Amino acid sequence: MSIRIGILGYGNLGRGVECAIKHNPDMELVAVFTRRDPKDVTILTETAAVCRTEEAKDWKDKIDVLILCGGSATDLPVQTPEYASMFNVVDSFDTHARIPEHFANVDAAAKSAGKVGIISVGWDPGMFSLNRMYANAVLTEGCDYTFWGKGVSQGHSDAVRRIKGVKDAKQYTIPVESALESVRKGENPKLTTREKHTRECFVVLEEGADAARVEEEIKTMPNYFSDYDTTVHFISEEELKRDHSGIPHGGFVLRSGKTGWNNENSHLIEYSLKLDSNPEFTSCVIVAYARAAYRMAAEGQTGCRTVFDVAPAYLSAMSPEELRASML
Amino acid sequence: MSIRIGILGYGNLGRGVECAIKHNPDMELVAVFTRRDPKDVTILTETAAVCRTEEAKDWKDKIDVLILCGGSATDLPVQTPEYASMFNVVDSFDTHARIPEHFANVDAAAKSAGKVGIISVGWDPGMFSLNRMYANAVLTEGCDYTFWGKGVSQGHSDAVRRIKGVKDAKQYTIPVESALESVRKGENPKLTTREKHTRECFVVLEEGADAARVEEEIKTMPNYFSDYDTTVHFISEEELKRDHSGIPHGGFVLRSGKTGWNNENSHLIEYSLKLDSNPEFTSCVIVAYARAAYRMAAEGQTGCRTVFDVAPAYLSAMSPEELRASML
Repeated sequence: MSIRIGILGYGNLGRGVECAIKHNPDMELVAVFTRRDPKDVTILTETAAVCRTEEAKDWKDKIDVLILCGGSATDLPVQTPEYASMFNVVDSFDTHARIPEHFANVDAAAKSAGKVGIISVGWDPGMFSLNRMYANAVLTEGCDYTFWGKGVSQGHSDAVRRIKGVKDAKQYTIPVESALESVRKGENPKLTTREKHTRECFVVLEEGADAARVEEEIKTMPNYFSDYDTTVHFISEEELKRDHSGIPHGGFVLRSGKTGWNNENSHLIEYSLKLDSNPEFTSCVIVAYARAAYRMAAEGQTGCRTVFDVAPAYLSAMSPEELRASML
Repeated sequence: MSIRIGILGYGNLGRGVECAIKHNPDMELVAVFTRRDPKDVTILTETAAVCRTEEAKDWKDKIDVLILCGGSATDLPVQTPEYASMFNVVDSFDTHARIPEHFANVDAAAKSAGKVGIISVGWDPGMFSLNRMYANAVLTEGCDYTFWGKGVSQGHSDAVRRIKGVKDAKQYTIPVESALESVRKGENPKLTTREKHTRECFVVLEEGADAARVEEEIKTMPNYFSDYDTTVHFISEEELKRDHSGIPHGGFVLRSGKTGWNNENSHLIEYSLKLDSNPEFTSCVIVAYARAAYRMAAEGQTGCRTVFDVAPAYLSAMSPEELRASML
């Protein structure tokens, strides 16, 4: 019997989860819940229902794991605890500072309902967190580095689009190659924000907008751009569509550390991702953790979990015997 | 209270474990067990005892986890089940084909004694296995690649040393850069043994030995060298000692995969290690899993585990709250 999955929220992430389920034969998408009118939402999976969010509660016995595909700012802090009282859930909550609070809320709801909730799943937080943690547990003396990119930052693209005179824009975050190389050489550099990443913007102007003023506003924008070396390119709407409609991303997690009685030996652990589609890769991670949530709940576990609490074997469709024979 | 560790076998790995314990303040080395006469064994930790292997059974209540530092060929298949009937144990068993059998033996012994045994811990098997497994669980459609090196292969160095006329030798396994690049580009190449790695030997000849004959014997040696492009350098004993006395190693685990409704997007996951000291890094991984064995046993778990069965948080000296706040 398949693991029956529901999706709440059908944006880029929801569509990514739908695609990922197609690639996992032990899973089945049974329903997508949306705040829009279901008549206006067309999904790819012919066998799945499209329902209003309010109907989700009627699916309690028909869904094994509900995947929450809303945003971290306002959706997930409310939705994850709410739905963890009815379903095993997985979310991709990524507001790092609010994770302890979110964890506590989901844990309370899931425990009292006898459900499992796995939060903050994706690649950062998610696979990057795992790699930071494993590397720190192994190399206890060392320095950590995370670089993001090259990839599209949705938040920074939005910030540029809010500037007067900007019709559309895409922003790429780019790791500084020389900083990466210094880390790889074991130089343990102390890196400022500016030394780690550069930012590159592709901007379509409204007719008659003042390019010099827009460029200045971007480059001096506090938090988003003022601490970075930023390059601004003005391009046509056609060029933006043709060359910048993807949502690639990726990055690097490195730990450089020492071993030996007197720290005489150096080691480097490096993990990297190069992703054509940020939401689709995130979705693949989420779907693997949905399998884990299903299995942990079947064992009688309850409460909130993060990637740190889930034994790797729970993620795989293979049996423990197959894993030991083929992957160890 | 510290986690009390014992080491069985005091070679390169045993010494590495001793160094790693020094870097983990929640652990304490209490005893080293050796087949040699303890009078002839000098260890670095002043507070630990050096005992004969036969005395280990008297330490049952004084050691929380016994780390088995013997070899996979003959030591561990016997030792790990034997000591799992008295101690929580961790080993680095790396004969891939015999893992299922070893797992079964350790599982039976550990279960009947109420102990935890974690086997095949290190970097391959170990951290590389974890990365293969996570990457496969996330990207269900794709190709896997593992490259080793640049590093010293003990087995291949030994094989060269057994050739008549060879006084001493070191062998390096080197990944082929163009093959790595092809994988990174997502070309999913089918690679033969020869296309993945080259081998480089540094050989000190006995006086009067025939260099041409030794080189020919190396290059045509079945299993070890005949399937590879091998370079042989003849050097002096002093040069070997000066330039090749380290035990560096490392390698790469990559998975290249597709996502999207019609597999339209490509992704690359890459994990790599660059290690000055193979045994010291292996030891660091083992010591983190010794912490896990201690904690799992304290929870009442029993039986055999591999890295696939251990939730990452068990490895870290940090509390779950600290991990969520600092690593997620």
